[in-house]
Amino acid sequence: MNSSGLVSAAVIPAPGIAPEVRQYGIPKLSTGECLVSIIASEVCGTDVHLFHGRLAGVPYPLIPGHVSVGRVEQTGGQLFYVDGTPVSTGELVTFLDVYGTCGKCMYCSVWKASTRCPKRKVYGITVGAEEPPGLSGGWAEYILLRRGTMLLQLPADVSPASWIGAGCGLPTAVHAIELAQIKLGDRVLVQGSGPVGLNAALLALLSGAGWVGIIGSPRSRLEVAGRFGTDLALDIASTSSEYRLSAVRQATGGYGPDIVIEASGNPAAVPEGCELVRDNGRYVIVGQYTNNGDIAINPHLHINRKHLTIHGCWGSDFSHVYRAMEVLARFNRVHNWESFITKRYSLQHAAQALDDVEHQRVVKAVITPQGE
Amino acid sequence: MNSSGLVSAAVIPAPGIAPEVRQYGIPKLSTGECLVSIIASEVCGTDVHLFHGRLAGVPYPLIPGHVSVGRVEQTGGQLFYVDGTPVSTGELVTFLDVYGTCGKCMYCSVWKASTRCPKRKVYGITVGAEEPPGLSGGWAEYILLRRGTMLLQLPADVSPASWIGAGCGLPTAVHAIELAQIKLGDRVLVQGSGPVGLNAALLALLSGAGWVGIIGSPRSRLEVAGRFGTDLALDIASTSSEYRLSAVRQATGGYGPDIVIEASGNPAAVPEGCELVRDNGRYVIVGQYTNNGDIAINPHLHINRKHLTIHGCWGSDFSHVYRAMEVLARFNRVHNWESFITKRYSLQHAAQALDDVEHQRVVKAVITPQGE
Amino acid sequence: MNSSGLVSAAVIPAPGIAPEVRQYGIPKLSTGECLVSIIASEVCGTDVHLFHGRLAGVPYPLIPGHVSVGRVEQTGGQLFYVDGTPVSTGELVTFLDVYGTCGKCMYCSVWKASTRCPKRKVYGITVGAEEPPGLSGGWAEYILLRRGTMLLQLPADVSPASWIGAGCGLPTAVHAIELAQIKLGDRVLVQGSGPVGLNAALLALLSGAGWVGIIGSPRSRLEVAGRFGTDLALDIASTSSEYRLSAVRQATGGYGPDIVIEASGNPAAVPEGCELVRDNGRYVIVGQYTNNGDIAINPHLHINRKHLTIHGCWGSDFSHVYRAMEVLARFNRVHNWESFITKRYSLQHAAQALDDVEHQRVVKAVITPQGE
Amino acid sequence: MNSSGLVSAAVIPAPGIAPEVRQYGIPKLSTGECLVSIIASEVCGTDVHLFHGRLAGVPYPLIPGHVSVGRVEQTGGQLFYVDGTPVSTGELVTFLDVYGTCGKCMYCSVWKASTRCPKRKVYGITVGAEEPPGLSGGWAEYILLRRGTMLLQLPADVSPASWIGAGCGLPTAVHAIELAQIKLGDRVLVQGSGPVGLNAALLALLSGAGWVGIIGSPRSRLEVAGRFGTDLALDIASTSSEYRLSAVRQATGGYGPDIVIEASGNPAAVPEGCELVRDNGRYVIVGQYTNNGDIAINPHLHINRKHLTIHGCWGSDFSHVYRAMEVLARFNRVHNWESFITKRYSLQHAAQALDDVEHQRVVKAVITPQGE
Repeated sequence: MNSSGLVSAAVIPAPGIAPEVRQYGIPKLSTGECLVSIIASEVCGTDVHLFHGRLAGVPYPLIPGHVSVGRVEQTGGQLFYVDGTPVSTGELVTFLDVYGTCGKCMYCSVWKASTRCPKRKVYGITVGAEEPPGLSGGWAEYILLRRGTMLLQLPADVSPASWIGAGCGLPTAVHAIELAQIKLGDRVLVQGSGPVGLNAALLALLSGAGWVGIIGSPRSRLEVAGRFGTDLALDIASTSSEYRLSAVRQATGGYGPDIVIEASGNPAAVPEGCELVRDNGRYVIVGQYTNNGDIAINPHLHINRKHLTIHGCWGSDFSHVYRAMEVLARFNRVHNWESFITKRYSLQHAAQALDDVEHQRVVKAVITPQGE
Repeated sequence: MNSSGLVSAAVIPAPGIAPEVRQYGIPKLSTGECLVSIIASEVCGTDVHLFHGRLAGVPYPLIPGHVSVGRVEQTGGQLFYVDGTPVSTGELVTFLDVYGTCGKCMYCSVWKASTRCPKRKVYGITVGAEEPPGLSGGWAEYILLRRGTMLLQLPADVSPASWIGAGCGLPTAVHAIELAQIKLGDRVLVQGSGPVGLNAALLALLSGAGWVGIIGSPRSRLEVAGRFGTDLALDIASTSSEYRLSAVRQATGGYGPDIVIEASGNPAAVPEGCELVRDNGRYVIVGQYTNNGDIAINPHLHINRKHLTIHGCWGSDFSHVYRAMEVLARFNRVHNWESFITKRYSLQHAAQALDDVEHQRVVKAVITPQGE
Repeated sequence: MNSSGLVSAAVIPAPGIAPEVRQYGIPKLSTGECLVSIIASEVCGTDVHLFHGRLAGVPYPLIPGHVSVGRVEQTGGQLFYVDGTPVSTGELVTFLDVYGTCGKCMYCSVWKASTRCPKRKVYGITVGAEEPPGLSGGWAEYILLRRGTMLLQLPADVSPASWIGAGCGLPTAVHAIELAQIKLGDRVLVQGSGPVGLNAALLALLSGAGWVGIIGSPRSRLEVAGRFGTDLALDIASTSSEYRLSAVRQATGGYGPDIVIEASGNPAAVPEGCELVRDNGRYVIVGQYTNNGDIAINPHLHINRKHLTIHGCWGSDFSHVYRAMEVLARFNRVHNWESFITKRYSLQHAAQALDDVEHQRVVKAVITPQGE
Repeated sequence: MNSSGLVSAAVIPAPGIAPEVRQYGIPKLSTGECLVSIIASEVCGTDVHLFHGRLAGVPYPLIPGHVSVGRVEQTGGQLFYVDGTPVSTGELVTFLDVYGTCGKCMYCSVWKASTRCPKRKVYGITVGAEEPPGLSGGWAEYILLRRGTMLLQLPADVSPASWIGAGCGLPTAVHAIELAQIKLGDRVLVQGSGPVGLNAALLALLSGAGWVGIIGSPRSRLEVAGRFGTDLALDIASTSSEYRLSAVRQATGGYGPDIVIEASGNPAAVPEGCELVRDNGRYVIVGQYTNNGDIAINPHLHINRKHLTIHGCWGSDFSHVYRAMEVLARFNRVHNWESFITKRYSLQHAAQALDDVEHQRVVKAVITPQGE
């Protein structure tokens, strides 16, 4: 906030136009709202899609930033955390990026699939910068959280950098792992080595998998996976699908993994995943967050005769964010999620951050609106 | 059995060659074997595939007939039914068409997916007519059941014609319905109106579904579904996919069915099923029993964003046959499965039976080796 | 509503004091509220407990009546049904008796067990008659539904009498059946023949069970079960536990049922249920809604060695009410739920209704505040 | 084997009579049998029960020892491991202690609960020393494995001492953890600190639990748990149930653990576990392997209102042994299971071993028939 009481934010004016810094006033808080001063906000692959206008229904101009951490600056009345303890000014918090889930529609109340609620909105993605009360994304000095947003306090041993290093990839991977239903000793293969893929591989290891492999690129990311303890890493850029099938089979007793988790976003990964997984295995598809076109599969060979179970995995709810924090609190000493952060950027350098993410120069880029 | 002690059987000599009647001797039974005189044996779509040589690993010459009913003629020592009661000569029985499941491999003992056991063999499909001890299919006066084959006695109120009218479609549908996990009031759509599709629709109704629709052809089969009580029947031959999507949506509150069961065998049904089912729904693919080629799907729209669960469903085990019999015993008074049988054929007319099935002139064709 | 604009309601002044008719004014509706003129409201076993003061945390004076049906009289602004269609004055509706579920606590948001949300309140049970805005139970000419209450419109073919005949027993049984996970052909035994038990037995039949038995009393209720099609009915008053064990075993192939559902409320039913169910079966305990004391079980014989799964089943959420309506809409022609209603009572005769329910003179008693 | 070709074995002659060393001849192997020279065999709590005659249906005289490791000495024909590789003389193996599971009864083939198969027999427990072909337990220089016994080869990095240190407690705990369905971040409490309890606590940690507590005794065993990384250890000998309830609640945000695993064998643990677990939690009862009498529970407070799920857990099948080996192969470097072994005993000192186990002087006692 500058001397004139204005807040700086990085804004994508329209699809394809680079983010620029704009100034906004801070509105008076209504009951249930919460103003958070942002310490760090993630730059993820979705932000690259937002920049290129690849997602439907996004209102521009847009302040990106859906996973953020900061300090409670002010609240509209007394707010509470999930366990009923009161929220105080100055506390370090993060929050579920989704709000507005209605609790009343068929998805929320009958089908228990709140991630498909048509009323849900996502900070930094489906709320425009000019939609009142404003300050709707994390790439800004402040974010204004709407009534009903689920806040989560950072435990003493989880730093803001750890949480942002984990990013939205961690709760997304928590959701994918929930669907994967790993049993002790299962063999798990992850396709894709971006933040979701790396987190999924790590969480598979922490869930008692007996073997974990990963297919991805570039080599630097595969090396991160290796440091966690993955048993096999295959560079997609330098191997053929035949080679990968053969290498994975050999590493899994000739059968293929019990579970494959697709986190690459490449449609071609889907038939390959169907081939890789063992008969009667489980395939979780979590990476196809944008429409990259059709792909051919063979329903007989890939699904029916294989007796395969496939789970599409979309979005996260608060349970995934909560569990992500529990994981971080317990395992962050061993597996340092902060180390995922390759580079920090000021609001002014948001365009550079997007470019570095798009071209995979970084594992994780972070916007730090108040400086590092 | 004729006066010279020989048994007549309908045999497919080689792929593409029409079945002909051949004579075989009856071997002396070893311990655990069982000789059953066949009253009726089913002609199913798989038999058409066998005739055309569309299945891999099938040994010709072949006596087809994997679901059969008959009388116990002789046993090699004392045999027992699943509940421990002894098997007696003259009892009316059917049997699981699969034998040889090893109980010792990874699929059987660790993964609990015995339908993928590499040792399992199927009467009438993967056992050749000349493989000792012979008499390996149901299109014959006698079948010789190998040691370990699971026998099931017909209850007093289930006639051989009812069991064969239900055919392999009923246990297959029991398996599909198990994976469908229907809850009371769920809306269920079945793609395909062959024996598996019709049985799946009927079982959905009997499982407490709130709405059941079917897409198929020809009209005569859809009328059978209508008599069960299906709420919507769409003729695939005279409707466009757009029309079907619209009609199904309209009938399901605009959302699409909670569950779709694919039982058509047409690869094009798969992306259509993905479109039809509601978000976060369940899609059971049970119809793709032969390789009819690839099909394009969109992993983003059809699986990931849709938060869809897909179950490939392959084969049956004894539990499905056992439950099929329980269903028949309870509901056969209300829904007469014998009425599925359109026509009966002697062994000499097996070729005609195949032709009638292939061209959908019948709902269910049955071979009756001892005459009707 | 009488000429002076006052609403009559049957009120339990305090534990043990018989209900009396009192008059209340109608408050001005706030946004989200809904005034419903009551056609019929259920008298259930819980109301007897409320009369005797057996439930903790109940605020007296109390207007009982948690399942009710009526017409929308007035709304505070535009309200919507679960499928997004608008609510109009004059429509026939029922509603989930629970409101105030917070969506924000650990139970609601992380553990997905909203029936344990500490904020949830139940009309006619945990909201006192004098708690503003008043009119908090169904035994009254009008009920005032708080903001967020889930309304459900009655389909054309479901009469108010059918819905009340089903009563809270139907959604409760829907929940129990959901936990029971019945497979086609399963054998299901229900302990208890009150409204929950009868509905559970009927829903088991509609879910494709192969055999359904019931243990209960009095004989009149068991006869109702028999009319549905239950296969065995044992009168608890005239049989010993040894006899029941023997009779149930004999009827289930010597094994015991696959699934037992406890709906009697008698603690002694629990060890008996553990004995009755087959090894590795499933036991759903839904009947123990009040504290009737301790009971001895043998953890080795009843649970551990038996490899038993036990599900406690508490409360219902909107999904169960929604599915109950779907069941009614589909099957009410066949199984007439209205026939559960033995007798109708005016508000003035509420005490008599409680007495008749307590002494099992009726299957289902109904309060009709506007006359029959 | 001594010079006269006889095999020494420790034998319990009859209930209550101390084990003594007897000599047996080695029979000629039939097809499918396997002779294994025993390196080490476990002494577990069940053996103490066998000594005191507390288990029904046990044939004496008995050679105890149900979990053992040794070298393949000779086979009756070619045998194979689960993955199809051939068994060779000299290989280090262990085996599922259960054989004879029929694959044909209702439990095996319809209900998929092979641990309840009435035909299954357990080496060292339900096969008497004088039942041909003899050598039926692990407390002997040799064990003769019956046809169909599932062999498992020890991987290079799993020593016989590690496998025996893990003992039957590890596969038993694998089974319990399978039923516990731990999600990332879940809080898990284990009741009992014997081998099953310690392994369950360790496996909960390896499955991604966010918090693991244990209640048990003596202090030495709780210290073992602490070295694994459990978050709370309560000594049952020096705490009241009120204190434990309070301490566990405090450590779990006031709610109680998501999951409780009973592994103590004390009936009083069952109502306490019901109290300790949070509402709508999961309770796995795996410790009640002998009948220690009845216990009072309150079905309303403990099960129904609590919306609790309880899983009785009986026995293990090969999948649990296989997964136990996978766990050991992966995590034995980190958590040294060999360290569970407190003391080794020759066959001559088997009585002392039983006494030390009964009086909890050891965590794990091991019989080493060939010397240490």
